[in-house]
Amino acid sequence: MKVVVLAGGVGGAKLADGIARILPPEDVTIIVNTGDDFEHLGLTICPDLDTVMYRLAGVANDETGWGRAGESWRTITELAALGGPDWFRLGDLDLATHLVRTQMLREGETLTAVTHHLCQKLGIQVSVLPMSNQPAPTQIQSGETIYPFQTWFVHEKWQPPVTKVVLPEDVRATRAVIRAFETADLVLIAPSNPFVSVDPILNVYPIRALMMDLPQAVIAVSPIVGGAAVKGPAAKMMQELGLPHTSRAVAEYYGELIDGFVYDTQDAGSCDDLEVATRCLDTMMYTEADRIRLAGEIMQFAEEMLRG
Amino acid sequence: MKVVVLAGGVGGAKLADGIARILPPEDVTIIVNTGDDFEHLGLTICPDLDTVMYRLAGVANDETGWGRAGESWRTITELAALGGPDWFRLGDLDLATHLVRTQMLREGETLTAVTHHLCQKLGIQVSVLPMSNQPAPTQIQSGETIYPFQTWFVHEKWQPPVTKVVLPEDVRATRAVIRAFETADLVLIAPSNPFVSVDPILNVYPIRALMMDLPQAVIAVSPIVGGAAVKGPAAKMMQELGLPHTSRAVAEYYGELIDGFVYDTQDAGSCDDLEVATRCLDTMMYTEADRIRLAGEIMQFAEEMLRG
Repeated sequence: MKVVVLAGGVGGAKLADGIARILPPEDVTIIVNTGDDFEHLGLTICPDLDTVMYRLAGVANDETGWGRAGESWRTITELAALGGPDWFRLGDLDLATHLVRTQMLREGETLTAVTHHLCQKLGIQVSVLPMSNQPAPTQIQSGETIYPFQTWFVHEKWQPPVTKVVLPEDVRATRAVIRAFETADLVLIAPSNPFVSVDPILNVYPIRALMMDLPQAVIAVSPIVGGAAVKGPAAKMMQELGLPHTSRAVAEYYGELIDGFVYDTQDAGSCDDLEVATRCLDTMMYTEADRIRLAGEIMQFAEEMLRG
Repeated sequence: MKVVVLAGGVGGAKLADGIARILPPEDVTIIVNTGDDFEHLGLTICPDLDTVMYRLAGVANDETGWGRAGESWRTITELAALGGPDWFRLGDLDLATHLVRTQMLREGETLTAVTHHLCQKLGIQVSVLPMSNQPAPTQIQSGETIYPFQTWFVHEKWQPPVTKVVLPEDVRATRAVIRAFETADLVLIAPSNPFVSVDPILNVYPIRALMMDLPQAVIAVSPIVGGAAVKGPAAKMMQELGLPHTSRAVAEYYGELIDGFVYDTQDAGSCDDLEVATRCLDTMMYTEADRIRLAGEIMQFAEEMLRG
């Protein structure tokens, strides 16, 4: 079964890793949000791509959820001493990724080609694709203020209440992304933030239309467990955007886009009467074993759906 | 006595440091070659400015002569693993300087302002000025090939024979540089490479004319000791450019520009009949004490010249 995973950061990276560990690499494509990419200190930084790549390569930092294991902070500490900005914590190993990427982009390579290069060097066998080669910056509107995503997310520690998530118009998917959808049997929406991780992908033309029109099954995994986000601002944003902060509300938010919905055992029973197929699973992924187990259970659910 | 020092890299930085340690900071201006600045990995790197700043700040690497003491190499090692170029060795601490500088330049600051900022953060009290705010790239012609300076110097390890040093036209000095010359009592040409460290400064309009016209004394210190360069390609270049690789030839190369010439005791007697005032001194600067001693002896020579 050919599987496409739509992934944001930490949760997306974990599910992507579970899927990558149980399927042949040629059957797995991870399409990653680039809406929170930004230019910082002259570097092109792609936080979600990096989180996914580092996780798949087995070099992710398990404590922080982002960045590299065994990271050091020599450059950023000295940079702060020299009066530079250190609100975005760039580790010494992580910096190498940004320097190589920025250099290759400046030489005219596409983000898709750069990501392919980095994945090869990191020993990643599944296909990891940025949703687009064009910049597609997500912005956060809070009252009268519009924040670039990382300013809101990291600098402001996602505290300013969200009035609206502003996504760019006219961003187009790459040929590789379109082909992945066209050949997929199953699209998994990872347990990522629906508004700032998944919507930016769906917003890329023609991804939403492809997902609506093509015959593949679409299964979303809830990022909300017991009324709270496993990590990050998803639950807080749901409240601020006038939605209940529940798994059920996530399923309803995706609406007709999805054919199946996976939610956590902590919310057992809350999604029984949805119009889509549902499966209640232990969705918490603390360890590699958790990631492999959950991926297997989701694939089993998908196979039952596709057979049924 | 107000002193201007024209400095390239290692030797220039050492003499500048000696002078800075014996004169009041307000009386010392170091004007630094920026001809070997270059863009690398998207960063604006100014090797001579950095060598001078690190030396003056007491954080220079005494073993290499360039870069920071206590340096580490986490980023460049990882960068090489990711397929990036590592021929120019960027240390983790050093990287912070390049990131801050590049960011400030991108925000519209001049190189003079950026250098002032970095010097303040590094606790440097004397004035350190880039020769120009404009890019002024030195190129090395070797037969039919023209190399950007760092490609020849670092990547090619200065091995291709030099046919010609190609300096850019129409580079202008900053107001701060011109004012430093106008108020100086003494200009010291540090023991730097005449062709690729000093000439690029003299080539900046109107520095050579100012030095010829203004009444201040100009003293050059020979970078050639016993027929060899203390460090780097100066002696090799002299041969390739058809000059004897001697202290005397350095004095003759500077010609009417200089009023005094300091050369090493290893070459005692070789410069006795020059038309300029000469002083034979131990010019080797292994330690801080050497730098202070030599600077003091040169200042004594200058005072005698100016009185005389």
